[in-house]
Amino acid sequence: MEIILLSITPDPERLIEEAGRTCYLSFDKISNESHRKFIRMIIKNGHHSVLEHASATFRVKGGSRGFTHQMVRHRICSFSQQSQRYVNEEDFSFVVPEAVALDPEASEIYGRFMAQSRETYKELIARGIKKEDARFVLPQGVESEIVISANFREWRHIFQERCSKAAQWEIRKIAMEMLKILKEKAPTVFEDFIINEEANTAASGLKIQS
Amino acid sequence: MEIILLSITPDPERLIEEAGRTCYLSFDKISNESHRKFIRMIIKNGHHSVLEHASATFRVKGGSRGFTHQMVRHRICSFSQQSQRYVNEEDFSFVVPEAVALDPEASEIYGRFMAQSRETYKELIARGIKKEDARFVLPQGVESEIVISANFREWRHIFQERCSKAAQWEIRKIAMEMLKILKEKAPTVFEDFIINEEANTAASGLKIQS
Amino acid sequence: MEIILLSITPDPERLIEEAGRTCYLSFDKISNESHRKFIRMIIKNGHHSVLEHASATFRVKGGSRGFTHQMVRHRICSFSQQSQRYVNEEDFSFVVPEAVALDPEASEIYGRFMAQSRETYKELIARGIKKEDARFVLPQGVESEIVISANFREWRHIFQERCSKAAQWEIRKIAMEMLKILKEKAPTVFEDFIINEEANTAASGLKIQS
Amino acid sequence: MEIILLSITPDPERLIEEAGRTCYLSFDKISNESHRKFIRMIIKNGHHSVLEHASATFRVKGGSRGFTHQMVRHRICSFSQQSQRYVNEEDFSFVVPEAVALDPEASEIYGRFMAQSRETYKELIARGIKKEDARFVLPQGVESEIVISANFREWRHIFQERCSKAAQWEIRKIAMEMLKILKEKAPTVFEDFIINEEANTAASGLKIQS
Repeated sequence: MEIILLSITPDPERLIEEAGRTCYLSFDKISNESHRKFIRMIIKNGHHSVLEHASATFRVKGGSRGFTHQMVRHRICSFSQQSQRYVNEEDFSFVVPEAVALDPEASEIYGRFMAQSRETYKELIARGIKKEDARFVLPQGVESEIVISANFREWRHIFQERCSKAAQWEIRKIAMEMLKILKEKAPTVFEDFIINEEANTAASGLKIQS
Repeated sequence: MEIILLSITPDPERLIEEAGRTCYLSFDKISNESHRKFIRMIIKNGHHSVLEHASATFRVKGGSRGFTHQMVRHRICSFSQQSQRYVNEEDFSFVVPEAVALDPEASEIYGRFMAQSRETYKELIARGIKKEDARFVLPQGVESEIVISANFREWRHIFQERCSKAAQWEIRKIAMEMLKILKEKAPTVFEDFIINEEANTAASGLKIQS
Repeated sequence: MEIILLSITPDPERLIEEAGRTCYLSFDKISNESHRKFIRMIIKNGHHSVLEHASATFRVKGGSRGFTHQMVRHRICSFSQQSQRYVNEEDFSFVVPEAVALDPEASEIYGRFMAQSRETYKELIARGIKKEDARFVLPQGVESEIVISANFREWRHIFQERCSKAAQWEIRKIAMEMLKILKEKAPTVFEDFIINEEANTAASGLKIQS
Repeated sequence: MEIILLSITPDPERLIEEAGRTCYLSFDKISNESHRKFIRMIIKNGHHSVLEHASATFRVKGGSRGFTHQMVRHRICSFSQQSQRYVNEEDFSFVVPEAVALDPEASEIYGRFMAQSRETYKELIARGIKKEDARFVLPQGVESEIVISANFREWRHIFQERCSKAAQWEIRKIAMEMLKILKEKAPTVFEDFIINEEANTAASGLKIQS
């Protein structure tokens, strides 16, 4: 699995302050460090729409189709995903769940099945079945590359939902990587998300209004 | 495959007129038949937001996970989908693409693989692998039930995209069924979509503004 | 001010259950009263997307342009609003804030100004200025009729934001009327919103997850 | 009126190509100039979702409340707007429609009324009426500063709607300025919008699919 930050709003925290102060016409309060206080205030007060002016785009390599099917339910995001209608999948890679990897016999069953799936796909293609139909035999575990853009308010929402203990492990693992990257790039916006390294979860330490 | 209309706005065309005439405060023009003329006018003029006041909810049974992954990309819709984290899939049904069904040898390869997939899923479950991990072996062709709600403007958009010749056959087949049902329930709103029975496609005969 | 429920999903709570049980394929648990327990469970668990399958449409008469400008910021809603480009506003009605109404002198200032505004509008129209330009003199207090559709999840969000003490009085007054109507029509979905009649506010008594 | 580009995705056309080629895994086709051809292809084919990965943020100074009320109807955008609840408007500026400016008598009527409005606002404030209530006398023509973020697909949609001859002159004037700026910053994405300098309109010269 590889998470690559493809793009991020330049100097995002200053942009958020610059945009957000429009509501109050309080531009005279801008100083070199004022964005931190401003952002903490709007997050605490639940005035999150201001965070929408900044955004970030990630490439996710090595996530499964199971993950992407969950991910694309986030309707505020923008997605460009590897198409099984256009890309030949004869050499697909696949994700192995940890529970399977830790059980040698399950691992063998799983690996054997993935090989069968690849063979079946090839046989169908060889018989002239189109990729868009042959893909019906591709398992959920098959890797599917995806590029995801979202604004910072939506990234916060995603982290809230997907870094929690209740989230499925794969999407949580990916969300945790993204959170760590955004914590570096926009530290104030994401500072309230406290990471539990052991459990690989994160949650906002703030009691946010509404 | 089975498409069931679960719910639709009562008397949707009159509601659209009643809401839309608010823009002009032209309620005095409402008569028993005036909604047809009004709806034709707003569609022709590209004033489609008025169509959003009416909506419809469908249950789709017998669509594949490949279909649902495409469908949930429509961000204006609302979805409730069978969860492979919660539902045991040991007895899954699956979709057979026509191109496969028409080729006896491909059919046999396909059917055999689906049986292997089911067996593999069962073996993993039997070894104590959780459903959310065992589902990684479930193929795209596995059936997944889904309920979809959208407003009429979005249904028009879906039909425009998914009833076209360029759409993938499965989502087109499902969209065509929905279109036929909505053409009965709200004939004026969908009347410009001309159905080509032979090709199983549909397209708006209108040159709509903007 | 008058709030009219123009349309609502028929039997909305049963539809929500019917749609939501798709996730678990637990249709066998449906009984005559089961929707209440089901809806309480999904609201408590933060599984609010299921509430999106039901929706309601209101007509609001007698709200000001100040109110509508706030209201149309809710991006999940659909709106049809009286257009100041098309409707002649020579006889406009206007909203009087309570604080103004309670102060006889302020009332007189306010009323006199509204009359001046009406006169100015008429003078400009009489000189051949188009409605879309003459409207620049119309005050925020001018009434503007609007029809609003939203799904139940969004209505809950609107009530959370707009029935709170922090909301502006006009939008709160309107939201409170809508909440009371929806509490009758879909009692379980909105039951956690506790109304404070004295303060004319409402807030969810639940600590909702995520 | 002043339109300031506050922020834009760095190297937006290359990002669009980089994201969009994920669908086909055709990264090997990327060269120094390939983004132009790629973007032309996706626009021509109606594959506009790829354009969503890039975005731009504008500050608009000197637009009226009439303009902002129209603008915030664009639901895919993010907005931060000068609040009449928080900002004292005793010294408000206002927009003068051209039709008014060209007619000396209308101009005088208009200017006199704006002065009355300012006086009335001050009188109400002086009597202890809160800003959020005094604002009811502020005309639509009062200036309201706003910051607007949107992705490129949405900017294209806005230009299509708001640069057309049918659009209201003020929003068209503002949209035209934005279009000119984005044509410089992302020339391929907006190249099909042909500007008619004389009429101050623009329209896509492409017949775009679906």
